[in-house]
Amino acid sequence: MGSITMHQEDDFVHQTRRIPIGAYIFHRLHQIGVSHVFGCPGDFNLNLLDHLYTVPSMKWIGTCNELNGAYAADGYARVRGIPGVLITTYGVGELSAINGIAGAYSEHVPIIHIVGTTSRLARRDRIMIRHTLDENWDHDTFQKMSEPVRTGHAFLLEDSNFTKDIDNVIQTCVQTRRPVYLYVPIDVPDILVNSEPLQKPLHFDITNHDRDHEEDEFIDEAVKMLAAAEHPVALVDMLTHRYGLVNETKQFLSLTGLQAFVTPLTKSVVDETSEHYGGLYNGKLSPSIGVQKRVESSDAVFHIGPFPSDSNTGGWSQKLQTANLICLSWNKVSVRDRVWHGLNFVPIVKKLVRRLELQKFSLKNTLALEDCLSTSAPLTAPTEASDQLDQLHVWRKFSPFLREGDCIIAEVGSAQYGTLELELPANVTFFTQLYYSCIGFTVGALLGALVAQREQGNNGRAWLFVGDGSLQMTVQELSTIIRYDFKPTIVLINNSGYTIERVIHGPLKHYNEISTSWDYQNMLRFFGAGPATSATYSARTYRELAAVLEDKTFQTNSTIQLLELVLDKFDTPWMLSGQINIVHEESTGWKPMEERV
Amino acid sequence: MGSITMHQEDDFVHQTRRIPIGAYIFHRLHQIGVSHVFGCPGDFNLNLLDHLYTVPSMKWIGTCNELNGAYAADGYARVRGIPGVLITTYGVGELSAINGIAGAYSEHVPIIHIVGTTSRLARRDRIMIRHTLDENWDHDTFQKMSEPVRTGHAFLLEDSNFTKDIDNVIQTCVQTRRPVYLYVPIDVPDILVNSEPLQKPLHFDITNHDRDHEEDEFIDEAVKMLAAAEHPVALVDMLTHRYGLVNETKQFLSLTGLQAFVTPLTKSVVDETSEHYGGLYNGKLSPSIGVQKRVESSDAVFHIGPFPSDSNTGGWSQKLQTANLICLSWNKVSVRDRVWHGLNFVPIVKKLVRRLELQKFSLKNTLALEDCLSTSAPLTAPTEASDQLDQLHVWRKFSPFLREGDCIIAEVGSAQYGTLELELPANVTFFTQLYYSCIGFTVGALLGALVAQREQGNNGRAWLFVGDGSLQMTVQELSTIIRYDFKPTIVLINNSGYTIERVIHGPLKHYNEISTSWDYQNMLRFFGAGPATSATYSARTYRELAAVLEDKTFQTNSTIQLLELVLDKFDTPWMLSGQINIVHEESTGWKPMEERV
Repeated sequence: MGSITMHQEDDFVHQTRRIPIGAYIFHRLHQIGVSHVFGCPGDFNLNLLDHLYTVPSMKWIGTCNELNGAYAADGYARVRGIPGVLITTYGVGELSAINGIAGAYSEHVPIIHIVGTTSRLARRDRIMIRHTLDENWDHDTFQKMSEPVRTGHAFLLEDSNFTKDIDNVIQTCVQTRRPVYLYVPIDVPDILVNSEPLQKPLHFDITNHDRDHEEDEFIDEAVKMLAAAEHPVALVDMLTHRYGLVNETKQFLSLTGLQAFVTPLTKSVVDETSEHYGGLYNGKLSPSIGVQKRVESSDAVFHIGPFPSDSNTGGWSQKLQTANLICLSWNKVSVRDRVWHGLNFVPIVKKLVRRLELQKFSLKNTLALEDCLSTSAPLTAPTEASDQLDQLHVWRKFSPFLREGDCIIAEVGSAQYGTLELELPANVTFFTQLYYSCIGFTVGALLGALVAQREQGNNGRAWLFVGDGSLQMTVQELSTIIRYDFKPTIVLINNSGYTIERVIHGPLKHYNEISTSWDYQNMLRFFGAGPATSATYSARTYRELAAVLEDKTFQTNSTIQLLELVLDKFDTPWMLSGQINIVHEESTGWKPMEERV
Repeated sequence: MGSITMHQEDDFVHQTRRIPIGAYIFHRLHQIGVSHVFGCPGDFNLNLLDHLYTVPSMKWIGTCNELNGAYAADGYARVRGIPGVLITTYGVGELSAINGIAGAYSEHVPIIHIVGTTSRLARRDRIMIRHTLDENWDHDTFQKMSEPVRTGHAFLLEDSNFTKDIDNVIQTCVQTRRPVYLYVPIDVPDILVNSEPLQKPLHFDITNHDRDHEEDEFIDEAVKMLAAAEHPVALVDMLTHRYGLVNETKQFLSLTGLQAFVTPLTKSVVDETSEHYGGLYNGKLSPSIGVQKRVESSDAVFHIGPFPSDSNTGGWSQKLQTANLICLSWNKVSVRDRVWHGLNFVPIVKKLVRRLELQKFSLKNTLALEDCLSTSAPLTAPTEASDQLDQLHVWRKFSPFLREGDCIIAEVGSAQYGTLELELPANVTFFTQLYYSCIGFTVGALLGALVAQREQGNNGRAWLFVGDGSLQMTVQELSTIIRYDFKPTIVLINNSGYTIERVIHGPLKHYNEISTSWDYQNMLRFFGAGPATSATYSARTYRELAAVLEDKTFQTNSTIQLLELVLDKFDTPWMLSGQINIVHEESTGWKPMEERV
């Protein structure tokens, strides 16, 4: 998102005129590249929605419920790199969506959540109108509830501030890469404002104001450390993607020749087919022992955009010593034990790239890439065609069938750990909500990703890997995907329950069971896909799976399609079991930090 | 709930022993009458859930997602009159449920929401574990978000306070008739406590401490005013039901001979077949002009449990003059303009009934009931068998087929206004979420109501009237209803979109459309009901509808069954259109109170 460009729409914005504030909002959103808005209609947002249609090429994507709408806006933002937009109604709608907003906040995904609220006079008089909580009740209460999951908000109360408030909140969203709220009272959308501000582009650049000298100091020290190192490596982490630095990082790797590793939350951010790609570093749970050794024995790890959550670090089993570390994040940068607090890495990475373009850099040494190839994954015997599908082998079977341009989404649980073993072609988008880890997220997120692909003119396929328990949470959004004529492939891991929970605790307990009677083979039909516009497959053995994957029709993705994989309910990907073993102490009684090192 | 009795379980509680605090929680819940707990498993609540199975006859009802679980707990509480219990996991689960909790808070429904949280040490160290939001983040943040939608909470942090904290929060829930939260860190459920407190019953009685004299004053004045009145009536409103005063109100009506009217949110609270029942009073939108006149011309309206929201008062069109009003609520009572602040009506109503039992009371006068029968509803021509179903007539067609013991649930939108015209047999439970008005609520609430009926040993049928837009929000919970072998009748109003929103604004707009391609005729099958354990019907005309309603199999309800009614997308119940017309100024610019009278 560092590279959001403002679209100046033809003649419209160049003519100053009086336009409704509702239209102003959608024009501004369109200027930052948004052409689709997600959400549900509700009595307090209907007259705002009217204005959406007045902006050319703006479209509405109605979701079945608001939580799924928030997930869709999140998936959209992850793929497009610009804010997703969600519109809900006062109380009932905004609160239904709040968990999806919290997930976006947690994983640094920008969403502009627009809420249609009660009128300014109803608010003043504290009217006991539908969706409120009490007599003489403060209508702003719901706004306070979402405060912890946003970096800013605007509440359109003062006519004279409307356009400024809107501009500010959009800028905050882009600059902080996290959700913001825009509250629009029902009496506001039709109010006319001067359109002139639309001619001034919004500015999203992040700068470290008046700290040029410190930026340079950091860069000098970092480059010096890298150049002097025997075995330097780059570790590309989540915030690199979130702050729109993927291209700059690619340039950096190319200019330095550094070998690059990714974390679980950064899979696909470095092209896995490039000469720079070293592998997935996940502490003790790295799929390759070589990768783990290489990163942990490096005397200069260029760690860009760190995100030190349990699941992104192999259960905090990363071993990176400060003495060997260059670290770049959104609120500080450091070289060894020298820290520059308050410096944001975005302008620094850009400056570093410019520096390296002018000033030739050469590494002292590089280990051969082959060092990384020995595997620590317990992957040994090949599978027989008649074997039942199992978590140890099934994931890698998909690798040969992935293609450039594909988008792959992995649901929380088995899919999220299993897909980390996929070998990705170039230009693949992969994401999973590994930190916030809210099951059900991906069905909505798939919708958002599909919309993003459509906006991008990307004809790549979209794959969703999802378990049955998760699918049941949010299944209705498949109907929206069908309704808007998208054609994803949904790979359903049917393993009769919440397998991730079974591994954690209570494998045989009733509470980890779900309904196992859903007729998945008729699911797409039930949700509105005709026989000619959908296809449904299933596989229990490797022979059956191969037959589907090799099927040309399946490969072309000319319709929405479901592939139901039947797996044992106690079987899990090795990385998931490993993750749980490592953090198991947490489940029964957390060991304090000082005891854990 | 005034009459919650503590169940002392056999020998278990009479022996003092060390028991896990997890077991203590479920024993206490069982003592207040709860035998089923709703929710979703999550890594932070699994070890708490283990203890559920150690309490005899306690059962888990796993819902597809947490929002639906909250709706189920709400529906359960409405039918049983005791708190519904919902269990979710930290962050992702509790926030998904929060809108359902807000709805319960709004409509005064008690829910005990138990959340499994991060361990006390992880909290102390502010660990960046899954479901949290930031590095070094306050783990209590989510708790603060739900503060406005609860009347109390307990957070089990101090071993020595565990049992007291649990007891207090349960008492708060019952006494305030609103949601409370119980936060249980993951390291707590197995900690042993002394079971002795279980031998002491919890006390739920509401008293007006040391204000006996004022209670008597109020009662004296109220009785005097009623006795002197020419045309006294009772208006039984929502909080009467919520505060467990339905039986006392029935006694009061029987002892006084007052004619009783209900509001939309109190339909079914007064037996519609009893001699006391006068009709539904909904201001200008009362179905009978006679009812409106009767209430508004009364010189003594005994208004018990008022709930003055827009939709419960015909859009604030009730005309009740203070000079003619006796009013009894949870935080004050009044006779004409004399107000006793801080007096709760619960002990007062009970005392009043005792007084009337001892002291004969006779009304001065009563108008003949027939006065109420003239209708203001635009219901004129009878229907022809070949006519298409329409909102003006279709609802009343169900009345002859309802039976004692039935439970009827009406979803937000057309169903909620249409069903207000049903004529109910005795002992029918009817509810709708008319104030909070969150679409999708009833599918989960139906599950809760069914569980409540099962606990009550009530073999009555359950009817859900729901529109297609609402059903799509929460449809997956039908699979839970099927999974646990319940047999409701689902009447689906298939009218191709959010008709309630179309009436409010934008009838032809795309944003009010939904997917119209769902194959409802195969819905129950898709969600796991076999052909022998489900039945599906549809009707477009009155002939077709009559054929279904008169079908003996349909009437017996021996399986879950769906009746799909196809209606025009712009057709609405007259009371819904009326409601919208009355409050329409709000949609376009609220008129302040002073201008509205």
